[in-house]
Amino acid sequence: MNKTLCTAIAIIAASLTAESYAQQALGSHANVASPEINADKSVTFRLLAPQAKSVLVIGDCLENGYAQMTMTADSVWQFTTAPLQSELYMYNYVVDGMKTTDPANVYQNRDIANIFNIFIVGDAADSKASGNRYMVKDVPHGSVHKVWYDSKKMGMHRRMTVYTPAGYETSGQNYPVLYLLHGMGGDENAWSELGRAVQILDNMIAAGEAEPMIVVMPNGNAGLEAAPGESSLGMVQPFVNLPEAKASFAEHFPEIVEYVDNNYRTKAEKKSRAIAGLSMGGGHSFEISKNNPDTFDYVGLFSAAVRMPGEKRADMKDAKTIEDIKTLFAKQPKLYYIAIGKDDFLMPLNNEYRAILDSFGAPYLYIESDGGHIWRNWRNYLTDFLPRLFK
Amino acid sequence: MNKTLCTAIAIIAASLTAESYAQQALGSHANVASPEINADKSVTFRLLAPQAKSVLVIGDCLENGYAQMTMTADSVWQFTTAPLQSELYMYNYVVDGMKTTDPANVYQNRDIANIFNIFIVGDAADSKASGNRYMVKDVPHGSVHKVWYDSKKMGMHRRMTVYTPAGYETSGQNYPVLYLLHGMGGDENAWSELGRAVQILDNMIAAGEAEPMIVVMPNGNAGLEAAPGESSLGMVQPFVNLPEAKASFAEHFPEIVEYVDNNYRTKAEKKSRAIAGLSMGGGHSFEISKNNPDTFDYVGLFSAAVRMPGEKRADMKDAKTIEDIKTLFAKQPKLYYIAIGKDDFLMPLNNEYRAILDSFGAPYLYIESDGGHIWRNWRNYLTDFLPRLFK
Repeated sequence: MNKTLCTAIAIIAASLTAESYAQQALGSHANVASPEINADKSVTFRLLAPQAKSVLVIGDCLENGYAQMTMTADSVWQFTTAPLQSELYMYNYVVDGMKTTDPANVYQNRDIANIFNIFIVGDAADSKASGNRYMVKDVPHGSVHKVWYDSKKMGMHRRMTVYTPAGYETSGQNYPVLYLLHGMGGDENAWSELGRAVQILDNMIAAGEAEPMIVVMPNGNAGLEAAPGESSLGMVQPFVNLPEAKASFAEHFPEIVEYVDNNYRTKAEKKSRAIAGLSMGGGHSFEISKNNPDTFDYVGLFSAAVRMPGEKRADMKDAKTIEDIKTLFAKQPKLYYIAIGKDDFLMPLNNEYRAILDSFGAPYLYIESDGGHIWRNWRNYLTDFLPRLFK
Repeated sequence: MNKTLCTAIAIIAASLTAESYAQQALGSHANVASPEINADKSVTFRLLAPQAKSVLVIGDCLENGYAQMTMTADSVWQFTTAPLQSELYMYNYVVDGMKTTDPANVYQNRDIANIFNIFIVGDAADSKASGNRYMVKDVPHGSVHKVWYDSKKMGMHRRMTVYTPAGYETSGQNYPVLYLLHGMGGDENAWSELGRAVQILDNMIAAGEAEPMIVVMPNGNAGLEAAPGESSLGMVQPFVNLPEAKASFAEHFPEIVEYVDNNYRTKAEKKSRAIAGLSMGGGHSFEISKNNPDTFDYVGLFSAAVRMPGEKRADMKDAKTIEDIKTLFAKQPKLYYIAIGKDDFLMPLNNEYRAILDSFGAPYLYIESDGGHIWRNWRNYLTDFLPRLFK
């Protein structure tokens, strides 16, 4: 930034007080750097809180999930982690028992009703390190559309996120489509924000590791038009008092495929369609692929709630369900992918489902990772799943 | 939400502690309601902070910009405002001297490096009340695209936000275009987030108050690819160490018009193009309309920094500049709109510019509002400007 501009900003900068609201703030940066990623990949957290008696940092970069911060001579609380692996991490502070975010870090994500800060640790030596996948790089970028479509079955307008790969606007080509579904409490923003799907796709397509594809991320909550704050419900508490729906999400799903095939340049054929989801979205992927055995050649169940409560859905061991699963596999999908973490509370359910598949020799690819029911795993599963599609 | 689902959530809900990071959080709602909009349109703020010694709420809904909150018997700090006019409001808490957000309210905006909570007070009796304009309603919604385009002049990929009106995907029609520019420290997300431009457009088009139009919101920082966190600079402090650019934003601008006319169904003609912006974006609108007198029939300067520091730009009183302004007005643009608040620090500059226009009888519409250099004014100016376009 040149000096004239700096001076202009300095003159009109508002302070971190009530004055901020009287004029547009043009400065107001925090007076500490936090988080600071150090040369050895340790990370230093800082918080200016002179009157606090106790400050914790909590997050998935800390061995026990939390650490006590120490006040330094200049009233700044501070903690430095051990060197970290390349990854996207999330954290909060707890100041005198009150959970808060880091005022020095504007990068945040919302997960249902929780807001936390994020940072990414890269790895210059390994381009395929997880953290590197999640960074915005100087590569051709796809576009991200927030579109509304009419659902006759649901009797409502519904919002979804659509990623089109770099070059879509000018190539004139048709593309395969991945339908990518979120979990309980999530929405049409979840995969692009918490899941870093846009960055993962941009980077893997640019590196030639994934085929250029359209990725469709609808809202999987049957009764909701859109994410919290984006629907006519207004700025309500997320995921509270969900309206009843006229049909299940699985029953509604063919309308989405129809909309996408009508409005985007798709390859509208089984071999060019994939469906995958996490948790509830894994349950949706199970159900939708089973109900539409000629639609998807690739199915991904990430930590899947194969049998979800609260939806009109046949029991997994029901004769009709088994028959439908057999029909699906008789049509030889190119990939049926099941991934789950060793500590995931849905492991017993997934074991039960795999036993059913094994009972009639259905072929599937099974990935068992470390960890539990967490976004870190779902991002990794997506990264592992994408290169297997549309080959 | 049905009972089975509630139970499922209750079972797997994570608490507001470090445990949140071990499994996906499915609950974790704050245990207070805040902000609560009361029947008389007063608003009650609450914060659970048992150990705090002093809590302030600061924001533009408070008479002096702040209020001291009072601790109630159950350790909840509380404050209720006077009844409020219909509007979008912003606030923060200051807990023992540390500025923070309201953990019970997931609705936030970022303005450069500041994150604050927002809420909207509606008005059932007046559909045109400001707050009602900013709410998501059950009307046909436009789509919002985050697209990247190549700039040869800048030698970089650049990101912009494009709004297409409801029905664009299927109508086959061509639409007029409004180019809508942000201020210093803003980015391609500013008008759609802080400015509520998407809701304003959706609601005014649905009510027949504005023509269906495409709205293009580029990034006006010449050296930047995209908003903070969305560019290959990574998750840097917003608006610090801006890279130098190869050309000014105004010099680059014709590339944006060319991209939009090539990639969207536009009416590619002067009478179907408008350009408007706030502060620095008002300066850009002044400059770009002057340099391209055959391109825009509608020009809006909102609290405009008519002469901005730090850009290669002729002085306003320069003979060439005056000549260019005269040329622009000789071509009789349908609307030249200047709006500014009585308390705006750019008032002297705007007076100076209007004196120049008056010196040769250039026709313009002048709106002088209350208030200063704030988003509340810019949203109002947009709402006032839109019905005047493309008639």
